[in-house]
Amino acid sequence: MATALARPQMISLAAGFTDSQTLPVSETRRLLEGILGRGTTARAALQYGTTQGDAELRRLVAQRLADLDAAAWGAIGSGPLPERVYAAERMFITSGSQQLLYVLSECLCDPGAIVLVEDPTYFVYLGIAQSHGLRCRGIRLTEEGLDVEHLRRVLEGLQRSGELSRVKLLYLVSYHQNPTGTTTAWERKREALAVLRHFESAAGHPIYLVEDAAYRELRFAGLDVPSALAAPRARERVIYAGTFSKPFATGVRVGFGVLPDRLLRVVLRVKGNHDFGTSNLIQQLLRRALADGTFERHVEVLRARYARKARTMVQALRRHFPEGVRWVEPRGGLYVWARLPGSLRTGMSSALFREALAHNVLYIPGGLCYAPDSTRRRPDHEMRLSFGSASLEDIREGIARLGATVAGVSGRRR
Amino acid sequence: MATALARPQMISLAAGFTDSQTLPVSETRRLLEGILGRGTTARAALQYGTTQGDAELRRLVAQRLADLDAAAWGAIGSGPLPERVYAAERMFITSGSQQLLYVLSECLCDPGAIVLVEDPTYFVYLGIAQSHGLRCRGIRLTEEGLDVEHLRRVLEGLQRSGELSRVKLLYLVSYHQNPTGTTTAWERKREALAVLRHFESAAGHPIYLVEDAAYRELRFAGLDVPSALAAPRARERVIYAGTFSKPFATGVRVGFGVLPDRLLRVVLRVKGNHDFGTSNLIQQLLRRALADGTFERHVEVLRARYARKARTMVQALRRHFPEGVRWVEPRGGLYVWARLPGSLRTGMSSALFREALAHNVLYIPGGLCYAPDSTRRRPDHEMRLSFGSASLEDIREGIARLGATVAGVSGRRR
Repeated sequence: MATALARPQMISLAAGFTDSQTLPVSETRRLLEGILGRGTTARAALQYGTTQGDAELRRLVAQRLADLDAAAWGAIGSGPLPERVYAAERMFITSGSQQLLYVLSECLCDPGAIVLVEDPTYFVYLGIAQSHGLRCRGIRLTEEGLDVEHLRRVLEGLQRSGELSRVKLLYLVSYHQNPTGTTTAWERKREALAVLRHFESAAGHPIYLVEDAAYRELRFAGLDVPSALAAPRARERVIYAGTFSKPFATGVRVGFGVLPDRLLRVVLRVKGNHDFGTSNLIQQLLRRALADGTFERHVEVLRARYARKARTMVQALRRHFPEGVRWVEPRGGLYVWARLPGSLRTGMSSALFREALAHNVLYIPGGLCYAPDSTRRRPDHEMRLSFGSASLEDIREGIARLGATVAGVSGRRR
Repeated sequence: MATALARPQMISLAAGFTDSQTLPVSETRRLLEGILGRGTTARAALQYGTTQGDAELRRLVAQRLADLDAAAWGAIGSGPLPERVYAAERMFITSGSQQLLYVLSECLCDPGAIVLVEDPTYFVYLGIAQSHGLRCRGIRLTEEGLDVEHLRRVLEGLQRSGELSRVKLLYLVSYHQNPTGTTTAWERKREALAVLRHFESAAGHPIYLVEDAAYRELRFAGLDVPSALAAPRARERVIYAGTFSKPFATGVRVGFGVLPDRLLRVVLRVKGNHDFGTSNLIQQLLRRALADGTFERHVEVLRARYARKARTMVQALRRHFPEGVRWVEPRGGLYVWARLPGSLRTGMSSALFREALAHNVLYIPGGLCYAPDSTRRRPDHEMRLSFGSASLEDIREGIARLGATVAGVSGRRR
């Protein structure tokens, strides 16, 4: 596959990379010049920061998150949101949201612990779980997000088998999910939290809801949804993970987390042992981007760009993919999730994947996104198609090639 | 202590921060402008990099390391150094050398494993070891570095007690050590490696030598020493950890490691799970700094600066500290290690520490730098004094205050 990727003709719809043409080049240049052009700000940026992260950056990120939630809440809820949930003191800056997911696994889970994940979910999280010797159980997804009734049944099953005490958290990619593009409805978050609460006393410890909001800022259609932080008693049970990689630049590697107080103390100690804190220079860059509105303006540019790329991909799918392939039009994020007829396998050893490679187009086989969960057969007839990094022309051409491949393999099957 | 540190009159000789006046402000500004002023280099810097790190940065770092070792080797050794040991493919970019130390503990050591450390050693490493449930055994230090005969006796003892199979690595801060300033002589490294090799078959697995060279570039007197990479068969047993935090800017948080091939593969997988790789923008900055000579010129500036600060501290010690206090004049790094008469305790609960705080001066109690090793009493009459971040005036004034405190407490003891 590495060899295939090195081919100049190869079109990759696989990688979760972002759009190169809209990277904030002039913005970053101007902001860094502002920081480095003055002795005091320059020296502060080039010296160690703190493990928790720059206080003003944390304040700005917390404020933005509170604003997003307030706006989304205004459309559906009533009454004010609890301010203290969005306090800068609960905020923690990380080297990408990836680092937070890793440190959380370290802090919350011993080998053999069970984590609940969406079925399918972000495959890199499955890798983290596997590296810590964790077991994953998949919870079904509907178009509205997590199937809360299924969550309840899985937990009941684990209680019956005496394994409930192993369950430590539910991991939810709640906005424009990687890989399916699904956004979890507000009610589902609230209900999922209540279900987790219900099983806590039998489990003998807190069961956390980890909300990975990596794609939240990349919404180009539909309404925003409040985060789980807005739910009752979220302050002690919800961990919110965000990032600047997708909505600003993947090259900066800065994310953030909002954590319950007790957990924050533990996580900070571990982060201190990892690396003492994230690069201060990069933190100062993001602080300025948030403070002067550059971030907000850049996010608008990205939204328009990804809306166009998503539209291009969906139009190409309609034109080139045979009958029987289904997908949901994305409202944000970087991915289209295509479901092929059940008889058509998409895995790395399938005829379809091999022929796609031979036609110089690459996708992520859907099977990679399903946890190794022995209670169900792993689906293997889906594909994740990314419109993040490919150009408009490559999206069109890549989908055309892939459509022809699907049609060819599918025709031979009839 | 946090309250004390917030006092404006407080002089901290405790933190391992670097000198603020010599941070590479104009250099960083110029280099980033070079990167961000051109579309192609800017976009590359703002996009994801690879987990192992930028290939050209790795090549440049490997070349510099090979050059340093070749120069040091030329003064004492004969014959060429093995080129392949310094290959860019063996090099790995990290978020500070701290991250490499952490990932190594994860990859090499299960809870209950034993790591051998200098006695005293870098106290943050002790924290990492503790967080992984590791046991530390201290190996005595002489003025030439590690006491290899003591290393042998400790390993013999562990073999007799049936614990040799738990020993995974020896951690050596080999240049201008934190906290003592000691530089390990070349012969000591070679001999230590041979001793570790000798016990490997009885241990049943490799015992690695982890060489932490964080302060190597900050040498302002004496000759450089070849790294352990220059020793016979080092390629499969030596892990070299370096950093740009001390010799360039602590705000960048970039370090590097040179690792045996098999271990590198495992470490890269874990690093991928941690954070996908270190900020690409910052890597591009350091690549330019190395490529155009900025780094080399900056290191010369730092050396002159720290030489002056070290001289200032030593002069103040001579002037203000009472008889019976001993120290070795530093030849590099950021620290003076002061040994008080055995009757004078320096720990956080000691009269001396409390009175120093009351006089608005802070040091690191030596006891914190000793592993919890039940085979010896933990020394508690030493202090680590940093000349890294304090100004020349603060160094003079801080040592004067501390000298008066020591004299006062010492006088009351007589």
